Amino acid sequence: MTLVCDLLIQADTILTQDPDRTVIERGGIAITGDTITDIGTWDSIRPRYHAAKTLDLGRSLVMPGLVNAHTHAAMTLLRGVADDLPLMEWLTKHIFPVEQHLTSEIVELGALLACAEMTRFGTTAFCDMYLLEDATYRAVDRAGLRALGGEGIFMFPSPAYPDTNRGFEIVRELHEKWKAHPRIRQSVMPHAIYTTTPEILTRCRDIAEELTLPLHIHLAETASETRQCLETHGKRPLQYIHELGLLTPQTTLAHCVDLTDDEIALIAETGAVVAHNPESNMKLASGIADVPGMLRHGVRVSLGTDGAASNNALNMFTEMTSCALLHKVHGMDPTSAPAQVVLDMATLGGAGALHLNSVGALMPGMQADIIALDLDAPNLLPLHNPVSHAVYAATGAEVCMTMVAGEVLYNDGAYQKIDYPALVDEVRSLRDWVRSHLA
Amino acid sequence: MTLVCDLLIQADTILTQDPDRTVIERGGIAITGDTITDIGTWDSIRPRYHAAKTLDLGRSLVMPGLVNAHTHAAMTLLRGVADDLPLMEWLTKHIFPVEQHLTSEIVELGALLACAEMTRFGTTAFCDMYLLEDATYRAVDRAGLRALGGEGIFMFPSPAYPDTNRGFEIVRELHEKWKAHPRIRQSVMPHAIYTTTPEILTRCRDIAEELTLPLHIHLAETASETRQCLETHGKRPLQYIHELGLLTPQTTLAHCVDLTDDEIALIAETGAVVAHNPESNMKLASGIADVPGMLRHGVRVSLGTDGAASNNALNMFTEMTSCALLHKVHGMDPTSAPAQVVLDMATLGGAGALHLNSVGALMPGMQADIIALDLDAPNLLPLHNPVSHAVYAATGAEVCMTMVAGEVLYNDGAYQKIDYPALVDEVRSLRDWVRSHLA
Repeated sequence: MTLVCDLLIQADTILTQDPDRTVIERGGIAITGDTITDIGTWDSIRPRYHAAKTLDLGRSLVMPGLVNAHTHAAMTLLRGVADDLPLMEWLTKHIFPVEQHLTSEIVELGALLACAEMTRFGTTAFCDMYLLEDATYRAVDRAGLRALGGEGIFMFPSPAYPDTNRGFEIVRELHEKWKAHPRIRQSVMPHAIYTTTPEILTRCRDIAEELTLPLHIHLAETASETRQCLETHGKRPLQYIHELGLLTPQTTLAHCVDLTDDEIALIAETGAVVAHNPESNMKLASGIADVPGMLRHGVRVSLGTDGAASNNALNMFTEMTSCALLHKVHGMDPTSAPAQVVLDMATLGGAGALHLNSVGALMPGMQADIIALDLDAPNLLPLHNPVSHAVYAATGAEVCMTMVAGEVLYNDGAYQKIDYPALVDEVRSLRDWVRSHLA
Repeated sequence: MTLVCDLLIQADTILTQDPDRTVIERGGIAITGDTITDIGTWDSIRPRYHAAKTLDLGRSLVMPGLVNAHTHAAMTLLRGVADDLPLMEWLTKHIFPVEQHLTSEIVELGALLACAEMTRFGTTAFCDMYLLEDATYRAVDRAGLRALGGEGIFMFPSPAYPDTNRGFEIVRELHEKWKAHPRIRQSVMPHAIYTTTPEILTRCRDIAEELTLPLHIHLAETASETRQCLETHGKRPLQYIHELGLLTPQTTLAHCVDLTDDEIALIAETGAVVAHNPESNMKLASGIADVPGMLRHGVRVSLGTDGAASNNALNMFTEMTSCALLHKVHGMDPTSAPAQVVLDMATLGGAGALHLNSVGALMPGMQADIIALDLDAPNLLPLHNPVSHAVYAATGAEVCMTMVAGEVLYNDGAYQKIDYPALVDEVRSLRDWVRSHLA
């Protein structure tokens, strides 16, 4: 019997990330609508399907799109404005002064640039916390990517709201506006302990429960956050949010640098997900999260880039490299953070951080969020081990095709959905606006 | 008066790396033969020159080609064959068994692949230690790159020689054969303390002095090397080679992970150059070299990738990122290893490691070793600070033009000197040979 599908993809090597971590040589993928319907060797797939279209990716490595578990997309506009500075000077003298003047149009432009960058470097889904988040959703919708987003909730005014009550209304409005979107989902996002109150955190938890939404918060990013939390609330950060009821399997905790072993065990017990951001933590000298310890305790760990102002790229391939290398040297153990574990963090782990079970692997029934890397790139030759290449050798620029929900967003050097040359011109014209608001 | 030149280059932004670290907007470079004859704003350069050819690089960032201060080029063939393993298991069970079977043809192929990768990612010169080094020189000659190389000298037989005496003859033969080459220079390269004897090291020093050649050695890579040196020679590695007379301004020491403050001061005093390899040291969990301490003491520090078997790329852009991020988090100081300092290591520092004073900056009289990065790449937008972008945001794949000694090696996606498709086919055909020699 011949089956029908919309698209058949053919490629030299497919890294499925299925439960057996199957790698298929000379493989094929059948896609209908936004969903993978079949996957296997090309010889087994091709004869069984009648496809409306075939995409021969030739000598390429096909794998699930990477998932960026924590970022602030629109901060691309601030890329490189301030580096090599202490965290508080960086934040208060360079980042905050510009952010005060943000408008919806500017956030949309910055987020669209971020989407272009992520598309180009093989990230198909991301988790975003920022200001005026509706503008980021518009960019995600235009770019064709997948995102879990949230308006940052603070105890002080933001460019999006004059007071926190209005902030909560915006969360509800965004939920209503975007809840039917196939690729965009809302999360409740209190910014951090030090920018909120216990009442605000409790209310965030209640809204998340009421609307059945996940919750995302910066947590335990630095030792000074811990000191401040102890001074203000008499508890360390994790215990503090735990007692407020924020630790659930629907919670994602960004950073988790300053944790004790017992706290790591508590995260594992509650089922919360950690979004690890090694490059941002390194660049801001925040410290090194105990990821090997988290993995030993069974914590679900994902990987993120953080914003482009503290990274300075939104590149999940180089983030995987940094993650693997950092934990090896930190623990003086070259077997730590092996390639497969790090790739799992950037795919299946990311799906966990976005609280989506339909992405992170290439299997029947999963969303067709697929990328292909050019195996003729000199840094991917020869091919002894595709997982090793993905984590240690690729820069992400080898990505030659990016697909989300069955739709090709980028192929052979060209964006399919966004007008990239127009975007470049717009971003360039905004450079002086950014500079004018710097100290 | 109108001056004559072979080539005028025009570009949006030129990062000169001259003593003032001048950045020129809308700049121009005049080149005659292999040499830069003039550099300045396009408006000042253009009217004064009659050029045989003009190369308009448009919206690009032009900068000196990066210098890889320590690598083993032909090890590209072993990229990804063995990761996430303890150093000695990696070396004795995976790397050495394959290397025993190396032939000149195979080394040349691996080195040519390395040259293709370096050319693609903006490295124009490198320092190479390997076996059958004549084959690497042939690859460098074909690819058009610049290299300082050396036959690895061991106390045991290598694929290049049955005994060390013959190894020394090879050093002399290689010197005779290549000494007139404009882009290839020889160095004397005892492999390491633990693979040589005091007599071999003394002889290496004598030959280097006799032929006026630099000397390059792996040194203090791990704490276990130090222990072994103490056991065998009763001294720590640096003191041991110092007493043998190996520390001179013509010496480059690769790694220098396990050093005391006094040892760092001694390196500064003797004028020897350090080749720092952060990614390899991280991946093999060798430790973290005290680069901020070296810089404080005035040591000349350069940057290298080490071989592709322990990195797994020969990418100086991502190496710069790793270097900057590693030292910030290690010292818990975000001002450590700032972008300009790291870029200096990868350009001027590299020139020091190769003992060449004609590369590392774009100035009149310097060799025309020049690269251009596409400033329309999404990860390089917007452009607030070109040095920040080079170190923190670029992957190296943005390189759109690579020139060595005035000759374009790569432009707009195409190699100009090597037959890249043929190279890809050859490398692929060799994959099974490598696998057949693995355990």
